[in-house]
Formats: sequence, C-alpha cells, structure tokens
Amino acid sequence: MGKKKIQIGLLGLGTVGTGVYKVIGRRGEEMEPQVGARLEIKRILVHNMKKERHGIDQRLLTDQWEDIVKDKDIDIIIEVMGGMEPAKSMILEALAAGKHVVSANKDLIAEHGEELLEAAQKSGTDFLFEAAVAGGIPIIRPLKQCLAGNEIDEVIGIVNGTTNFILTKMFEEGMDFQEALDMATELGYAEADPTADVEGLDAGRKVAIMASAAFRSRVVFSDVYTEGITKITAKDVAYAKEFDSLIKLLGVARNTAQGIEVGVYPMIIDRNHPLAAVRDSFNAVFVHGDAVGDTMFYGRGAGEMPTASAVVGDVIDIARNMQYHCSGRIGCGCYRTLKLKDFGEVKNRFFLRMQVRNEPGVLAAIANVFGGHKVSIERVIQRKAKAAKAELVIGTAAVKEYHMQDALKELGSMDIVSEVSSVIREY
Amino acid sequence: MGKKKIQIGLLGLGTVGTGVYKVIGRRGEEMEPQVGARLEIKRILVHNMKKERHGIDQRLLTDQWEDIVKDKDIDIIIEVMGGMEPAKSMILEALAAGKHVVSANKDLIAEHGEELLEAAQKSGTDFLFEAAVAGGIPIIRPLKQCLAGNEIDEVIGIVNGTTNFILTKMFEEGMDFQEALDMATELGYAEADPTADVEGLDAGRKVAIMASAAFRSRVVFSDVYTEGITKITAKDVAYAKEFDSLIKLLGVARNTAQGIEVGVYPMIIDRNHPLAAVRDSFNAVFVHGDAVGDTMFYGRGAGEMPTASAVVGDVIDIARNMQYHCSGRIGCGCYRTLKLKDFGEVKNRFFLRMQVRNEPGVLAAIANVFGGHKVSIERVIQRKAKAAKAELVIGTAAVKEYHMQDALKELGSMDIVSEVSSVIREY
Repeated sequence: MGKKKIQIGLLGLGTVGTGVYKVIGRRGEEMEPQVGARLEIKRILVHNMKKERHGIDQRLLTDQWEDIVKDKDIDIIIEVMGGMEPAKSMILEALAAGKHVVSANKDLIAEHGEELLEAAQKSGTDFLFEAAVAGGIPIIRPLKQCLAGNEIDEVIGIVNGTTNFILTKMFEEGMDFQEALDMATELGYAEADPTADVEGLDAGRKVAIMASAAFRSRVVFSDVYTEGITKITAKDVAYAKEFDSLIKLLGVARNTAQGIEVGVYPMIIDRNHPLAAVRDSFNAVFVHGDAVGDTMFYGRGAGEMPTASAVVGDVIDIARNMQYHCSGRIGCGCYRTLKLKDFGEVKNRFFLRMQVRNEPGVLAAIANVFGGHKVSIERVIQRKAKAAKAELVIGTAAVKEYHMQDALKELGSMDIVSEVSSVIREY
Repeated sequence: MGKKKIQIGLLGLGTVGTGVYKVIGRRGEEMEPQVGARLEIKRILVHNMKKERHGIDQRLLTDQWEDIVKDKDIDIIIEVMGGMEPAKSMILEALAAGKHVVSANKDLIAEHGEELLEAAQKSGTDFLFEAAVAGGIPIIRPLKQCLAGNEIDEVIGIVNGTTNFILTKMFEEGMDFQEALDMATELGYAEADPTADVEGLDAGRKVAIMASAAFRSRVVFSDVYTEGITKITAKDVAYAKEFDSLIKLLGVARNTAQGIEVGVYPMIIDRNHPLAAVRDSFNAVFVHGDAVGDTMFYGRGAGEMPTASAVVGDVIDIARNMQYHCSGRIGCGCYRTLKLKDFGEVKNRFFLRMQVRNEPGVLAAIANVFGGHKVSIERVIQRKAKAAKAELVIGTAAVKEYHMQDALKELGSMDIVSEVSSVIREY
C-alpha cells in the first residue's frame, strides 16, 4: 500500500469544478476505506481571486498555475476549465511532471486525445476522461473494460441533453423548434449561444471519443459528419408520431467492413427502441457488441453533480492505481488503425417531405428520379390537397448518401417540386 | 510487463462455458494488443468425457480437477458450472493456489461471496463476478468503480429475463400467466422447473449481490424478501394499463437511514419510467446515487454470448492486473456494516383488488379497516356490478408492510369481503 493522503489540484471552479469540490468534500472520509487513502483538494486554480465563492475554502484558491504544477504533494490534477488553451498545455505539463490527470474536456480530447494519452503513457501516469462523454453515465470504462471481449460494431447515442429536451417538448407538447429552444434557454438547459448544441457539434465531439474507445482506432472530431436539429419542424415530428416513431438527435458510430462511419444527425426512430424512452435532458448510449448484443447506458449527460460523479470515479480509480503501483494500467486502447468511410458511402433510410404540384404524373416523375439514382421507395403518403400543391411524404430503403444527395439535387431543379421541406434519416 | 501468454482453466462447458470458449477463441489474437498477452484456454473440466462436443478441441477436456488446479501454467480459473458444490471448494482451492477466479455463479456468490472475496484477498488474487448479475450488462464494475464517488441509495432491477418475458406477453398480448409461461417454456426462455425464476429466487440472489456492491455492506440471499409473479392475473395487468402503468418483477434495494431494504416482488410502475421500456427477456438495472442522480444499465441478462461477454471482460481485467502486478486491486468493497431493515418496516404503496358484497356501507366499512391500520387510501375504483358482488380496486399511500398485512388479515375475516384477489406494490 502507498500513501495515506492523496492531494489534488483542481483547475477551474465553474459548475463542474464546484460539483467536484462538493463531492470530494462530503465523500472524502468515506473514500478512505475504499481506496486506502484520504482524498483532499489542496489547491484550486481560478481566474479571478476576488470573486465571492460561497462554501469554498478561500485559502485553497490560486491564480498561479505554478502553485499547482510545482507542488510535489499534488499527485492528481482535475481539469474542468474547458476549451483548448491553456487546458492542453497545462495537462501536458502536469503529465510530464508525473501527475495523473482527470479531464472532462470533450473539445480538447476529441481533437488532441491521442497526444494527451501518449504523453500519459510516456510518463507512466493515468489520463482519464469518463466525464467528457455523457456526463455521469459510465460509458468509457464499460467500453474499454467491461465490453473488452467484444468486437463492438455500433455505438448510437443521445449525448446532448439540450437537443433532447427540445425534441421531447416538440414531440410531447407539439411545440415548434424555436418555441422549445426558448423554453430550454429559459430553464437554463440551453446556453445563450446554443450553436454547439443545436448544430450537433457538442454531440459530434462525444461521438469521436466514444468511437475511439469502442473501435480501438482513433477517431477525431473533424472525422464526424454533423447536422443539427434547427430544420426539424412540428410537422416532421407529427409525421414521425403517425409512424409510431419519434425524432432524436443521434450520434452514430459504426464499424463496418468498409470502414468506420461517424456522424451526428436527427433520426426517426421506432417508439419501441430503448433510445426512444430517453426523455427531456437525459442522455443514453446504445452499444452493440458481437457477444453482448444490445446494451444501453442511461442517465444525466451534464450538470454539476452528475459530471462530478464521473470525475470523482476517475479520481478514485487513479488513487487505487497509485496504491497498487499500477498507474497507466488502462491506457489509450487505440491499438489499431481502421480506415474511415467517406460519408457519401454511408447508407441510410430517408424520410422526405416535399411540396409538389397537384397534377397527374407528378408522383411518377418523382419516382423516376429516385429510380435513376438507385433510391428505392418503401412508403408514400400524399395528402389530399385542395389547392394546386400537395404534400408528398416518401420513405426510402437504405441508400448511399451520395445517391440521395444527387437525387435531391435533381428534384430541386424540377418545376413540379416547389420545395423539399425535410430530409431526415431513419434508424 | 509480465507474461506473453496467459493460460486459463475453464470449469464447465454448458451454455455459458461454450460461449466463453467461443469468445476467447475468436478474440484471442485481438486481445493481445489489449492486454499485452495472448489469452488461451488450456484445460476444460467436464463431467462426461464421452459426450460429443461440436467445435471444441477435445484434447483440452479433462474430468480431473487436479489436472487444472495443479497445473502451474494456469493462472486464471473460470467457474461456470453453477451450484454450490463442488464449485465453492474448487474456487477456494484455486484462490489458495494463487490462481485468479472469474465466476458467473450467482447462487454461490449471493450466499458465500464474503468468504470467497476474503480468500482472494488473503492470497492476493482477483475474484471477479460481473457475469453473476444481469448477464452481459456491466453493473458490478460501474457500481464499484464508475459510481464510487456516490452514496448509492437505490438499486432497482429487472434482473430475470424469464419473468420479464412473461409479463411483457401478459401486457402486450393480454395473455394470462400460465399461457405466457407456456410460451416462455416453448421458446426456451423458461426452464422445465421454472420455480427459481417465477418465484423471484433467481432475482433475489442478484439483488443480494448488487446491494452488497452498491451499499458497500454485505447482503446475502437470505436477507432478501422474495415474492414471485404466479399470482399476477390478466385482470391486474389490464388495471395497470388503465392507470398508464405496467407490472414488472423488480429487485428493490434501498439504503435508508433506518437500514437496508432488499426485496423482489412484482410492482406496478409508471409507463414513463425508463424501466417500463424494458421488454421481453431484456434486463435493466436502475441506480440512484447522490451525485449522479438516476442512471440505468440495460441489456441481455442471460444467454450464452452475453454472459460470456461479461466473463471475458473480467478475464481481461485480471490479465491487465497480472501485467501490471496489481492483482487484488478491486477487492471486496464491503468496508462497512449497515443494518438490515425488517421487511415489516419497509414502506410501499399498494394496489389492492378485492371482491366485495354489493350493498350500502361496504366501502365505508373497508375504508374504516384501512384507517384503523394507518393505511391511507389514494384511489378507489368500484365497477358497476349487476350481481350481488362488486370488484373494488384500491390504491394506497405508502404504508409499512406490517400495517398492510394486519389490514389484509382483518379484511379477510370480514363477511362483506369474499376475496382479496390481488395485492401488488406500486413503485
């Protein structure tokens, strides 16, 4: 056994940092029998020393990084500042100094995960980031350890709480996108600038991290095709409901014989699928492995305490490794290099809603365009229209993205099609 | 780094054993970069050497335990025989001989877990059993590691696939219990003697193991109150549906200020609860922690390959510990002794269905009995009856079990009550 006391440097005291401070404070003593040592936050790096912080021991605060990185008593650094710099440089310095690091920084890890994990390996330290994906939900450790005996071929996640809240309101209360977004903003679920959430960028970063852990091959954020939910209308949601389905923003990662597919986009999903029951701001990740079959992990994907739960779980793992002298036990895991599939080659089923001229021969002409691009039609709904226009809803069989894009381009140039109102993939 | 090759002795070659053999066979090479060593099954202990076994290397078979326990090249024992003896003695011998053990044996662990974990600790070896609870679903590792920063106060699980299949058929297709059980037997979901499943014993063992891991205090099978689903009728299910709810067999473990509650019983649960979406033979475990909030783990709770997935995940963890010389890193975890709450003191809401005389004053008399036993009524449905009898359905507020039992005893002795047809707890 090793140390009696393990001291921690906390970088950042925002929402998550405050949660971590609280959890370690109230669980510090209980953790002693769990890890054989007392866990204690020794210093906290903040921007503004003068800001009033209720319930925080002011003596721990510092605005000098050197106070932490040069402190030999500090063994573990928790980085919850977010953003690229100075987070990245600090983590690299900390690892080089032999300190273990826990990070909740998905932006950084989705882009520079490999470099950070290599630095940890080089110095024989731990770099863990369970909190970077899906907040409190255990997903990185299950992928890397519990399911290690599987060839995982699919990871599908609802990994953004803001958009899931919006889509839930649209589905359950018939709201339109803007109305639901306004409500999310009012309740504090959406940030003042909601772009990263509603455009699927936040989910895209999490998908990159999960795909790397699941497929054991590095995937970065720029590999991920992203499409948000801003174009989803109340009408689309109503059609989905009619098909006994609903619309969810899904992060989709698949390991196929032709390469890895990674994307984030809204999808129409059957109401009986376990992901369909994930409501409000909850998150869930659905994983398929060759041995385990279907499995799902559900919980709070964000927030002060759930994210702190994941951070502290990692800290305890690091402390155990220190006590047993096996730091670096679970390293990068990306031991192979699988190729990435071009997104144009990815196959999906599509739901298309379009406004067309209400006259004989129109459906035939449109069906003809699809046929010419190898798109096979599975379902058609045409609503009786009183005016000169009709709404046509088409469900297609699985088709390659580039065939669909070509078909849509041709449709867009036809006189009889006044608008393609919605293009949504179907699970 | 340690060994280049890690050799395994497999005890038992039934459904799960065959799955383990397959997974290690097909993933053996892939595991090498994951754990730094090749994993290989060296010997397999079977009862009957003469039985034809398709796809198994016959040279690995033995019916002599000594061939395995005395083989110094074998580092890991996988016990998938089930039952108390000889499994228990073999595991203890193996641990004493310095071998690590993975077991899927819930009966054994729910009763003798403490002794086995102590033996492992004494010899500095690993004893892991992820597969003993909820098959392929990662739950032990999440409870012991990922959620280690939480005070977990509730674990509610659908941990028996047979009964969940039966209840799903009753709910979705209006079948009665016997009809659904017959179907489960026909499809191979239920055993010839379904007692352990339908009476909640199988689930009870899993709840004991989960409660120990979650609350860090030893709970054994005999501590668990168990009640099965044999008395659930199509009528009960129809009433639940009317309340926008359904009936599930739940394993319930709570850590309260007055002690630990553990039981298995059918419960009426709201259709919007995540556990309500768990259909057919799937399992799920719902966990509440003070930091993480609500979280759920879903997947296949049994079967050859899902259970093998959990076993092999444990084997890989053990192999990693061997490589890093930190065996025993995650030990028992029950570092405290919390008291057990007497089941009579447990509070639940109840759904009661009874046949009563159809005359004035009956409802008042019954309400009076409940009032006298501190049972407060929240909901009453009395169906218009043409005959001399009426069906009365009552929903109560949360009440201590012993108060409810006293009230039921008194009701049973009343002339106006011809039958208490159903007593089902509500979540």
